[in-house]
Amino acid sequence: MRPAENAQLALLLEVSGTPKPGNVDRERDLPDLRYEQFLASAVGAGAGLRAAESGPVGEAFERAVEGMAAIHGENTQFGALLLLVPLVGAASDGDLSAAGTERVARNTTVEDAAAFYRAFEHCSVFVSDPPDEWDDLDVRRGSEAIPALEERDLTLHDVMALGEDADDVAREWAGGFERSFRAADRIAELSGPLSDRAATTFCEALADRPDTLVAKKHGVEVAKEASDRVAAALGNREALSALAAEFVERRINPGTTADIVAAGLFIALERGVEV
Amino acid sequence: MRPAENAQLALLLEVSGTPKPGNVDRERDLPDLRYEQFLASAVGAGAGLRAAESGPVGEAFERAVEGMAAIHGENTQFGALLLLVPLVGAASDGDLSAAGTERVARNTTVEDAAAFYRAFEHCSVFVSDPPDEWDDLDVRRGSEAIPALEERDLTLHDVMALGEDADDVAREWAGGFERSFRAADRIAELSGPLSDRAATTFCEALADRPDTLVAKKHGVEVAKEASDRVAAALGNREALSALAAEFVERRINPGTTADIVAAGLFIALERGVEV
Repeated sequence: MRPAENAQLALLLEVSGTPKPGNVDRERDLPDLRYEQFLASAVGAGAGLRAAESGPVGEAFERAVEGMAAIHGENTQFGALLLLVPLVGAASDGDLSAAGTERVARNTTVEDAAAFYRAFEHCSVFVSDPPDEWDDLDVRRGSEAIPALEERDLTLHDVMALGEDADDVAREWAGGFERSFRAADRIAELSGPLSDRAATTFCEALADRPDTLVAKKHGVEVAKEASDRVAAALGNREALSALAAEFVERRINPGTTADIVAAGLFIALERGVEV
Repeated sequence: MRPAENAQLALLLEVSGTPKPGNVDRERDLPDLRYEQFLASAVGAGAGLRAAESGPVGEAFERAVEGMAAIHGENTQFGALLLLVPLVGAASDGDLSAAGTERVARNTTVEDAAAFYRAFEHCSVFVSDPPDEWDDLDVRRGSEAIPALEERDLTLHDVMALGEDADDVAREWAGGFERSFRAADRIAELSGPLSDRAATTFCEALADRPDTLVAKKHGVEVAKEASDRVAAALGNREALSALAAEFVERRINPGTTADIVAAGLFIALERGVEV
């Protein structure tokens, strides 16, 4: 399979893994987000992922998000695509390593940053308020923020660096995609169906580090509690399923950790893990 | 979504529907065929489905099958693709009706038939022995049968007509895709998640008519029994789940009925049914 196809498959395998406390999976919908919408989004993101094989990162990402949201307008995999697009680029360059991916990230331009901002116009993405001095760069401004980007001469890599403390997808960009590669190693190490391995890797990654989307929505304390609860339930499918029910009820949705697992699945597939 | 994307989504929604006695679904693998392989196949078939939007039917079909089987070599959706390719062509022509699809089917050439035969070389497809006088056209010969096709001047539509008594995918080709369009109507009429509607439509279609793949593998009597059993369980999810377990055990795999439901899902999606 070519990189764009492995990326699409990574999205499908990620959402199919169960149980993943708080997230959509093949057995669980959220009140406002359903399994079938994730399937449709993975299909719709295809053209953008193919563009990521050879085109500029920003444009490919915007196109992927546009396709993802085209059919239902929901944000299903915005963060996952933000990781997959540079990874697809690195794989297409023949260097899907931390260094190769970092090179793709560092080579982004102001134009890539502008496309990233435009992507926010295709669906609603939950973000925190930026610090006052970055108010003109609030991603919720969409393309209206582009003049400020240009004035400050910020590339997409620069923009991600601004977000790395609050958002673990941005942290991947700034830090050589470290957790994505670690997830890939873990997926390769485990056995059984890939979506089961993805669910296990998700739980372990969440136990290891609070989810930044949960922190943004509910505060750091709740994010830490969620991780501690999952840590205590690791390896116990019944306990994880009970947590899944509880987290859905409480709208604790560790979406960033899922994004990183999708990136890990892509890397594992590119390295030849068997479906 | 463009037609090729709706076709890809139809494949994903079809396999996700549960319970579908005897077939793979999101809750059940067969001993030799798994849910995740269907996800990978739907991704792999993408390029062929895109080719079906503008290119010759046979070539698009061969490419779709090659992509479907590329990652694991299994026949997951051979029959579904054989229905989807002409339907995608008709949708791209702007006439996704029985007449429009029949026009695509009737316009196929000997070269389309040759590509169809080559498609059998990409994976193993269960077929019955042809009558003696058609032995040189046995699909299991793959591309070796092409000289016989050319000598007899048979188009893909002609080849399908030869198979219509034994195979309900061929019967769709010869008869204006009647059951595919009926499945689409039923899917639109039902409510709830699309894969649930697909599972219901599958059970009703199977209850209505014995599956030809089951008939080829186990004989007409078993195929009839399977349909009668499903008919008696219609509307009773528990009974259908029990049948699913039994059919998997007995290797009763009504794959042709699933192919027709995938075609119906595609038509329903093209007509704007909501995901």
